[in-house]
Amino acid sequence: MAVGTELLLGQVVDTNSSWIGEHLASLGIDSYYQTKVGDNLERIRATLETAVARSDFVVVCGGLGPTPDDITRDALAAVMGVDLRRDAELADRIAQKFWRRGRSMPGNNLRQADVPEGAAVIPIFPGTAPGLVCPVGEAVVYAVPGVPWEMKEMMTGWISADMRRRAGDASVIQSRTLRTWGESEGGLAEQLNGVMERLDASGRATLAFLASGMEGLKVRLTAKAATAAEAAAILDEEEQAVRTVIAEQLIFGTDDETMESAVLDLCRRSGLTLATAESLTGGMIAARLVAVPGAGDVFRGSLVTYAAETKRHLLGVPDGPVVSEEAVRAMAAGACEQLGADCSLAVTGVAGPAPADGEEPGTVWMATSVDGEVTAHRQVFPFDRERTRQFTTIGILNQLRLRLLARAEAAR
Amino acid sequence: MAVGTELLLGQVVDTNSSWIGEHLASLGIDSYYQTKVGDNLERIRATLETAVARSDFVVVCGGLGPTPDDITRDALAAVMGVDLRRDAELADRIAQKFWRRGRSMPGNNLRQADVPEGAAVIPIFPGTAPGLVCPVGEAVVYAVPGVPWEMKEMMTGWISADMRRRAGDASVIQSRTLRTWGESEGGLAEQLNGVMERLDASGRATLAFLASGMEGLKVRLTAKAATAAEAAAILDEEEQAVRTVIAEQLIFGTDDETMESAVLDLCRRSGLTLATAESLTGGMIAARLVAVPGAGDVFRGSLVTYAAETKRHLLGVPDGPVVSEEAVRAMAAGACEQLGADCSLAVTGVAGPAPADGEEPGTVWMATSVDGEVTAHRQVFPFDRERTRQFTTIGILNQLRLRLLARAEAAR
Repeated sequence: MAVGTELLLGQVVDTNSSWIGEHLASLGIDSYYQTKVGDNLERIRATLETAVARSDFVVVCGGLGPTPDDITRDALAAVMGVDLRRDAELADRIAQKFWRRGRSMPGNNLRQADVPEGAAVIPIFPGTAPGLVCPVGEAVVYAVPGVPWEMKEMMTGWISADMRRRAGDASVIQSRTLRTWGESEGGLAEQLNGVMERLDASGRATLAFLASGMEGLKVRLTAKAATAAEAAAILDEEEQAVRTVIAEQLIFGTDDETMESAVLDLCRRSGLTLATAESLTGGMIAARLVAVPGAGDVFRGSLVTYAAETKRHLLGVPDGPVVSEEAVRAMAAGACEQLGADCSLAVTGVAGPAPADGEEPGTVWMATSVDGEVTAHRQVFPFDRERTRQFTTIGILNQLRLRLLARAEAAR
Repeated sequence: MAVGTELLLGQVVDTNSSWIGEHLASLGIDSYYQTKVGDNLERIRATLETAVARSDFVVVCGGLGPTPDDITRDALAAVMGVDLRRDAELADRIAQKFWRRGRSMPGNNLRQADVPEGAAVIPIFPGTAPGLVCPVGEAVVYAVPGVPWEMKEMMTGWISADMRRRAGDASVIQSRTLRTWGESEGGLAEQLNGVMERLDASGRATLAFLASGMEGLKVRLTAKAATAAEAAAILDEEEQAVRTVIAEQLIFGTDDETMESAVLDLCRRSGLTLATAESLTGGMIAARLVAVPGAGDVFRGSLVTYAAETKRHLLGVPDGPVVSEEAVRAMAAGACEQLGADCSLAVTGVAGPAPADGEEPGTVWMATSVDGEVTAHRQVFPFDRERTRQFTTIGILNQLRLRLLARAEAAR
């Protein structure tokens, strides 16, 4: 259950429920219904009653904040047929959280220490809104904040384990994702047709495609088995089957491995440092790289030269058009030199919506430099501003990855 | 109602319901519940029964395809207590659609011509799955395909008008969002308590808070009125009421205006150019700035100096710790100098998870430079890596915004 009028009005898309459904599936817990309801006491109460009547567990997301429209606590008390009681110890913990950030606590926030009688507070408490565990008849309701990271910490840190404990052993669903770049969804589907038909016939696993923009085109295998070890064995085998069919270099990572981490790992293993020079992407590539923990071993920095003169002054780009092969080559070489790096990538282009430098929107020049050798190429994307940037980011990182792979191969 | 097991498993996020909710709001039709259910006949039937018992109109999205797991038609017939009947004319139209695209029709697709007795076919029929209008007691169920563009054409092209016709004249709902930074949700709620109580009593509009990370803390007013002009007039008035109560400088934008666009606009109006020097944020601030169309007028670029030596070499950061006041001041000054900008912002800190440079994770030094004068301050965030970056990004942009506002004020 997701609570919030903004969800019904379409002002916020409910991604929390999707995440929770995926998480529950990985635990082997079937998710049968997901309902959104507005900030209305009577309708939250009615929805809770329907939910506890048909499910063993209910996760309610949102409406636990300090403001008067946060009424999930009240609805829970109503369904349980009890009163709210202020938990003095909890009030103290909430006040301390404000104090530690050097902020004074508005009186409102004490509402968050109100707990329905008979309910317990979820031990994991990452933000300022505590979560609740409420027994209702045979069912258990978990109330968590709508703030995604707080909800996720509570789910993975405590609720999952509590559900499994209460449910006894359930069967396990596991997925494995192979992340690819360089082939279309239709092309991959054609190559993997035989594998998919065999899986369909045997029912031992399923295979699905998921186009995920800058995260790559994902090939996801899902297996259900009595134990985690059995599911993992099926996935190992089927992963091998997929890898035998499609070209090895299309796959840049599995599960949560990003293109950025693949590139950083390759650099690290070869003892190479990395720099970037970005115009079109404006720092997006660097920001993706530093989001990987431990990036500092490899990544030196980025020169985001958005204005033409900064390209010339900092990177030695010669006079002439700045969306050109000459410019992008100078940028890649300049990045290595200025930032003291062994390899680099560089990007310059026209994000749009208007043409620039005599080039159409979507025109991008990309270059990589490895061991002082620069290669460059031009691509024209048929996308909007944001997607042009994103596809450029994963595209140029993939080119560098392929060069680093070839280099490691040659060194063997 | 959205039908599809992939929605419950989190493999696809249900954006159809969000779109439908927003569309209905614009027509003045209240959307009270949105439910997702899997491809299971009994559960679709039960969900439909709950839905028609509590609503005048129900839109069911998905499960109208040709494959055996498409069973929305069967569930509708069950709820209506009738049989499915193959509609010969409809079968003909479906076959023609294939024929016109030069494709042969798989036999399966004839299932899409099955219509519950007493139901009608929706006249708008853009894809290959026809939509249905099913009377169930006092309620009307509209069944539409899950393919977003087909669903949208049916909604805007026929269903909206049919609903309005059946409902009599309905009213219009409009929203306006004030984006704020610098005060907690509880603090704002306390200040706006009087406004909210007055709105609650009069019922002319509602006010809600929405913590949206790097997008700010949003204050959203929603008004319902007979006409769009009336709703806008209420919003104008209540926006003024909110602005009278909370400090003017907390509000950085309305609706889709971001902190980045606010800063770029202030620079543009004062004829100032902008540069950034980023360590902790690794280019995130620059990437947010260049995502605003027209940023190139103002934004010169960014020096993403992730490695310590690059800070010293490119920005003149002196020997000593690089997470320090001295370092961040040198970075802000160096960014203006190297990138030829009038003002700048600079960030250095410890993203975590490990401590660095003798500082705890979450420790951030931020500086802004305006007219050659640098101000700096230190903040410790209790967040993870990614959130520390995001809060640093909006926080430092907001500081620059406040300095630029003060500068413009002084110049008047």
